[in-house]
Amino acid sequence: MKKQIAILGSTGSIGTQALQVIEEQSDQYEAYVLTANNRVEELIAQARKFKPEAVVIANETKYAQLKEALADLPIKVYAGTDAICQIVEDSEIDIVLTAMVGYAGLKPTMNAIRARKPIALANKETLVVAGELINDMARLSGTPILPVDSEHSAVFQCLAGELGNPIEKVILTASGGPFRNCTMEQLATVTKAQALKHPNWDMGAKITIDSASMMNKGFEVIEAKWLFGVRPDQIEVVVHPQSIIHSMVQFEDGAVKAQLGMPDMRLPIQYAFSYPQRLKASFPRLDFKMCTNLTFEQPDTTRFRNLALAYEALHKGGNMPCIVNAANEVVVAAFLRDEISFLGMSDVIEKAMSIVSFVAKPEYEDYVATDAMTRRIAQELIK
Amino acid sequence: MKKQIAILGSTGSIGTQALQVIEEQSDQYEAYVLTANNRVEELIAQARKFKPEAVVIANETKYAQLKEALADLPIKVYAGTDAICQIVEDSEIDIVLTAMVGYAGLKPTMNAIRARKPIALANKETLVVAGELINDMARLSGTPILPVDSEHSAVFQCLAGELGNPIEKVILTASGGPFRNCTMEQLATVTKAQALKHPNWDMGAKITIDSASMMNKGFEVIEAKWLFGVRPDQIEVVVHPQSIIHSMVQFEDGAVKAQLGMPDMRLPIQYAFSYPQRLKASFPRLDFKMCTNLTFEQPDTTRFRNLALAYEALHKGGNMPCIVNAANEVVVAAFLRDEISFLGMSDVIEKAMSIVSFVAKPEYEDYVATDAMTRRIAQELIK
Repeated sequence: MKKQIAILGSTGSIGTQALQVIEEQSDQYEAYVLTANNRVEELIAQARKFKPEAVVIANETKYAQLKEALADLPIKVYAGTDAICQIVEDSEIDIVLTAMVGYAGLKPTMNAIRARKPIALANKETLVVAGELINDMARLSGTPILPVDSEHSAVFQCLAGELGNPIEKVILTASGGPFRNCTMEQLATVTKAQALKHPNWDMGAKITIDSASMMNKGFEVIEAKWLFGVRPDQIEVVVHPQSIIHSMVQFEDGAVKAQLGMPDMRLPIQYAFSYPQRLKASFPRLDFKMCTNLTFEQPDTTRFRNLALAYEALHKGGNMPCIVNAANEVVVAAFLRDEISFLGMSDVIEKAMSIVSFVAKPEYEDYVATDAMTRRIAQELIK
Repeated sequence: MKKQIAILGSTGSIGTQALQVIEEQSDQYEAYVLTANNRVEELIAQARKFKPEAVVIANETKYAQLKEALADLPIKVYAGTDAICQIVEDSEIDIVLTAMVGYAGLKPTMNAIRARKPIALANKETLVVAGELINDMARLSGTPILPVDSEHSAVFQCLAGELGNPIEKVILTASGGPFRNCTMEQLATVTKAQALKHPNWDMGAKITIDSASMMNKGFEVIEAKWLFGVRPDQIEVVVHPQSIIHSMVQFEDGAVKAQLGMPDMRLPIQYAFSYPQRLKASFPRLDFKMCTNLTFEQPDTTRFRNLALAYEALHKGGNMPCIVNAANEVVVAAFLRDEISFLGMSDVIEKAMSIVSFVAKPEYEDYVATDAMTRRIAQELIK
């Protein structure tokens, strides 16, 4: 029996690579549901190729176009974010890959957990915003959350066979992004085009900007706390510009285990699908004839203040990470419209953290309110 | 119940570090048997400190001295290699650590396997000489062989939780030893004193010379075949002068897992004792503030011919690795007495490989005969 995969966000970077995995491992997996936010042409092409049971477009104005284009195929067509939240509960689905961007991933992930669907989690904002809530839900329902981020997948791979051996430290590697060697003066004037050029990874625009500002690494620190049950002081970030060591775990005997490889997201995607098994795959191999030098630096939280803000939010807890995430989504969107400077992004996030009401023990409704409130405030701060 | 450990070769480098582990984890382990080849004073001191059930000195002429020195303690005292072979079968023993040097480890290891004692294998010559025989015995009796070599321990640690996931490649790291950057001209005149200065590891004389000549890595390649069931072409050696990555495994999905740490043999010794658990320990931690650069080079089998000879012996199989080992033991001893040059060692080994009778399917007696014959021939070749 082939595993039936629902891909939320199938037209994005992770989504398209997940479809490559499904194509390469077509004796193992089938695309059962594909959803997209807005890119209807890509979704049509994917649906015609992979023949899923159903497709959903979040933007309801594109429904007619999608429906018409697939009229000759027996594919169910839906529209709207509610439809995405509902379809993850379909009893045929074996795994839900959450690969949409930002806060939008929270609700459908919650629904999938409630329906006890194993989650291949590529939408890190879900755990950043509501890690405690999601963790509690997953634990209570016995639903596995399998990380897809290359860093957390690396940690997860290193934890195989180590049940009962406490983690002493999680060491997340960071490429340092395109501005690793920039001075504050240079950072003040970097452009969107420069920020979108990641040295090692080809990713979507939002996460690429987050990588350049190191907010991505800050989010991964928060994510690591919830995925691996460690304290903030047990999570270390080390800058490793070659992105060959994807991350590491240190155990209580002092042994460090690492997962290495060429930067290629298809491997962690496939591992989340196949865990605990590994499937033979043609992904490029690490070659020590080419890879002759791996370097490590300490992250600089003066130049990359977002990393410090994320640690601060994690220490503070409650709805603070939700505030950071919402403010960050707003400033990144503004940066991509050339409405805010690179360094200005951290200023807005920091101000939002001090302005938005703090809730120590948020429920789902508090996250919704915090997210909405923070977005309004961040927009005003940008103006 | 504390695990009772028999340490064969307790006065050597591995033996003394194993006793440090037992001391640090004294709620878990007790030294039950200590054996030494010749160093009776050290053995007496260890026995007085650790109060084992029994001690054995291989050199029978030292028996009286040992017996007398421990007369006030309820410790059984034996002498001779046969006594070492017999004592490993004692029903109280939970783990046998084989840490003696060279071919001498074979017989007691076989006896311990026959008695179904889990083997913590630090005597790599055992698997080099008679890997097939030992492997068959261990498999038939269901006796685990737990590697203590830092490289194989690293691979073993990376294989935890990967049952059923085939190995694509084992990548053994090599420091390259003290002569990594020497030209052939320089290698022709290097001295014993230079060879004994290993850049990263503090080890016994035999293994330190083997590291300088890269025969140690060749032996580890042979050992890896038997420990992990891989073909010779699946075993890669990469020179990694910092000795931080202890070794790696590549799986069929392309993922590489590595074990890293400061060079400290106590960790792999402890892991062999505690597997699959890890025990909290005070061994020095890896610090990426200090460890800023890991480099990798391809091994040079022109300058370090022993590595090529070991691969050749592994490909050929039968008693060929036994020939290489015996010839190597003779030339290393001769080098330590200044009776042969550094490069001359490989010449003798290569000649012995072509002179000694090849046996395709050796039994134990064939190994004994091959070892004796090779030693005679190697001695003559040195003269």
